[in-house]
Amino acid sequence: MATALRQSAKYGLLGRLAPFVVPTSVHGRNGISRTALPYLMSNQRHSSSGTKIKVDLDSSTGIAVMRLQSPPVNSLSLDFLTEFAINMEKLEMDKSCRGLVITSALPKIFSAGLDILEMYGKSPEHCGEFWKAVQEMWLKLYSSNMVTIAAVNGSSPAGGCLMALACDYRIMAENPRYGIGLNETQLGIVAPFWFKDTMANTVGHRTTELALQLGLLYSAPDALRIGLVDQLVPEDQVVSTAMETMAKWFAIPDHARQITKSMMRKPTIDKMVSNREFDINNFVSFITRDSIQKFFRMYMESLRKRKA
Amino acid sequence: MATALRQSAKYGLLGRLAPFVVPTSVHGRNGISRTALPYLMSNQRHSSSGTKIKVDLDSSTGIAVMRLQSPPVNSLSLDFLTEFAINMEKLEMDKSCRGLVITSALPKIFSAGLDILEMYGKSPEHCGEFWKAVQEMWLKLYSSNMVTIAAVNGSSPAGGCLMALACDYRIMAENPRYGIGLNETQLGIVAPFWFKDTMANTVGHRTTELALQLGLLYSAPDALRIGLVDQLVPEDQVVSTAMETMAKWFAIPDHARQITKSMMRKPTIDKMVSNREFDINNFVSFITRDSIQKFFRMYMESLRKRKA
Amino acid sequence: MATALRQSAKYGLLGRLAPFVVPTSVHGRNGISRTALPYLMSNQRHSSSGTKIKVDLDSSTGIAVMRLQSPPVNSLSLDFLTEFAINMEKLEMDKSCRGLVITSALPKIFSAGLDILEMYGKSPEHCGEFWKAVQEMWLKLYSSNMVTIAAVNGSSPAGGCLMALACDYRIMAENPRYGIGLNETQLGIVAPFWFKDTMANTVGHRTTELALQLGLLYSAPDALRIGLVDQLVPEDQVVSTAMETMAKWFAIPDHARQITKSMMRKPTIDKMVSNREFDINNFVSFITRDSIQKFFRMYMESLRKRKA
Repeated sequence: MATALRQSAKYGLLGRLAPFVVPTSVHGRNGISRTALPYLMSNQRHSSSGTKIKVDLDSSTGIAVMRLQSPPVNSLSLDFLTEFAINMEKLEMDKSCRGLVITSALPKIFSAGLDILEMYGKSPEHCGEFWKAVQEMWLKLYSSNMVTIAAVNGSSPAGGCLMALACDYRIMAENPRYGIGLNETQLGIVAPFWFKDTMANTVGHRTTELALQLGLLYSAPDALRIGLVDQLVPEDQVVSTAMETMAKWFAIPDHARQITKSMMRKPTIDKMVSNREFDINNFVSFITRDSIQKFFRMYMESLRKRKA
Repeated sequence: MATALRQSAKYGLLGRLAPFVVPTSVHGRNGISRTALPYLMSNQRHSSSGTKIKVDLDSSTGIAVMRLQSPPVNSLSLDFLTEFAINMEKLEMDKSCRGLVITSALPKIFSAGLDILEMYGKSPEHCGEFWKAVQEMWLKLYSSNMVTIAAVNGSSPAGGCLMALACDYRIMAENPRYGIGLNETQLGIVAPFWFKDTMANTVGHRTTELALQLGLLYSAPDALRIGLVDQLVPEDQVVSTAMETMAKWFAIPDHARQITKSMMRKPTIDKMVSNREFDINNFVSFITRDSIQKFFRMYMESLRKRKA
Repeated sequence: MATALRQSAKYGLLGRLAPFVVPTSVHGRNGISRTALPYLMSNQRHSSSGTKIKVDLDSSTGIAVMRLQSPPVNSLSLDFLTEFAINMEKLEMDKSCRGLVITSALPKIFSAGLDILEMYGKSPEHCGEFWKAVQEMWLKLYSSNMVTIAAVNGSSPAGGCLMALACDYRIMAENPRYGIGLNETQLGIVAPFWFKDTMANTVGHRTTELALQLGLLYSAPDALRIGLVDQLVPEDQVVSTAMETMAKWFAIPDHARQITKSMMRKPTIDKMVSNREFDINNFVSFITRDSIQKFFRMYMESLRKRKA
């Protein structure tokens, strides 16, 4: 496991995930070009499978299941985020779809968060494009008209945690070796204000202050205790429980639920949208600092050395 | 009980109160005209009894007890709200009154919330007048200089819950069959922003988001657990406990308590006041929609059919 | 104990601390002039000792320990606050210092809060100067770049509680006879908006509303339960636990932690800074009211009479 940890950390913001489980098999990233068509829609099967995300929509139930399948750790790369956004747009416009379950097709990991390789040694332009895609992911998910349930069947640090937090409900595997949290400071970087707002909307100001300053990853039971997730179930029941939970949400008239959801989330969304450019500039100038790039380089070199 | 539930739902926003107790006897609404004098004050007895609300003020203790007595379920009709506002104004100006206990004179129900009959098949003008009265109820209660304690001796959905939330302290009968919550979405309508703010000020953002989206009614024990009420006592001790609790509040110098209360609540009140017209227009245009009126009609017809 | 309570109440905002422990030995205030040099720095020993505060900085660990030693109850007098501000400035500029532990050198009391003698029978100018110093204390502590841990080894009412709340983490002696809370209303005065904001950022809106209106002092176990403190340990381990806890905070790169801390606290700080003059004027006009001065006089006279 130790080796896997070091390797996977190259690809995402797992940071110091020490006590938490990460995948034991680590494959290289595939070489699909970013200009390749990332999305294939089969209208017959209501199913789509891009290179990194697979979506199955059952029109009879109105539930779409989105499976993250980008080995080794579902890092949020630019490709991944682009596929995610396209999928979200299609589902949002599909009137037969009322609810979305997001889960991982990989063992032991939900998503390891932002892909460091998109931020290390890249041009400011690339970093800006990448950050805009991260913003877009959050905007589409946090403001979705669908009922969104995160079926967190593995560890979910940093951006992976953000993705779960942006859903309406979070069901996590009750495995205490899975961790979830916004642990950015552990890697020397900082969760931006809208990560913070999303977490504070979920667990309150004080818990967020402590969690973000210390870059805390919570074990599944601790995450339940502080309200970071809503429910724990055995690992093999995470997705099925999410499907069953949809019934409760579908019992509410969509229009009333959607207006209510918008009322709750609009101030947070408006704040982000009106500070979007500022946030991108802020991210780019921070991440391209020599000190941060050096921190990344040392971090990745230390991983390579340990691995060797 | 099922029959009573269906009938009572005609009069208030009980919605899908299924697991919770509602009154078993349902009487027709009385025919008192809205222009009739709704308030009779006896200066000698310091007691007043309108048609729908009875107030007893004991000048020796400084505590007024307001008993809601509008069968079958203390629905917040325009008449009821008008009486409420007049009573609040009188008590607020009466220097011998420092504290107010609000409770129900009816069995098993505190208040069933907004009266659907004020919103169904009515002119926009009427709906606007009604909504202004709902706003006024909340404004008077949430900003009261008195110590206000809700003695919740029965179920308290929707507007009934709002009334309890606007008090300083909530004591509920420990009967698990009594429910409390802002369950508006269950009826296809939406709690406005100031209902939301009041609840979020009490139980936090996340619990409010979940409760409002799903239109959750909490059993008394669950309501205590999430902080929607402050204390549970046996049903026959709800009012007496409220009276005893006043002593703790009266021990604090009024001026310090009042300034503190205002400091805590002023931002929420100011926000509502400065959006008051917007909120009325918003309510009227929403509630007079064909789809909403149709939803109400279908709902009420389904009740009649089941009853027949 | 009763006598000590009455006496100590003269010096701070202990208010009705009845069930909580306060010092048993009460000494007169020393006569050091306010114009005397309150700060002596020994560069060799990295230690300083003013008349009321002792600071020891261990450059090898990066931890400074600030011991409050102003008998009888570490009241926040103008002298005390001036010393505090000077110490904070020196530590903040000292690059060898990354963390600060604040604790009391006196038995059974952390700090009794604002010194009533600075507010009773004083000129508006003096009251304004005093209040500005209280603001400064909070500003320096709440916005500190250092990791700040309150080692609360005794009761901590009113301003003492504020000082603890402004730190990053609070460790309290698990003695249930020690109380902590913003109990201002018990003395007929009012915690200002930024006391309120600081508490609400820690324990949420509802708990703050209840605590401030009723002037609640929480026993150590209750303080832990509501999140007013983060951890309870045996009394003789409060400081050592604080030192050990620093390791967890120091493991986070300073720049990432500081940016995160600022992001969490800046809105609250900005609000106070932009209302600073208003807040001073508000305090002065309130505290110099005849009714408040009379309240103070009666309170102090009643203490003297009981004592006699």
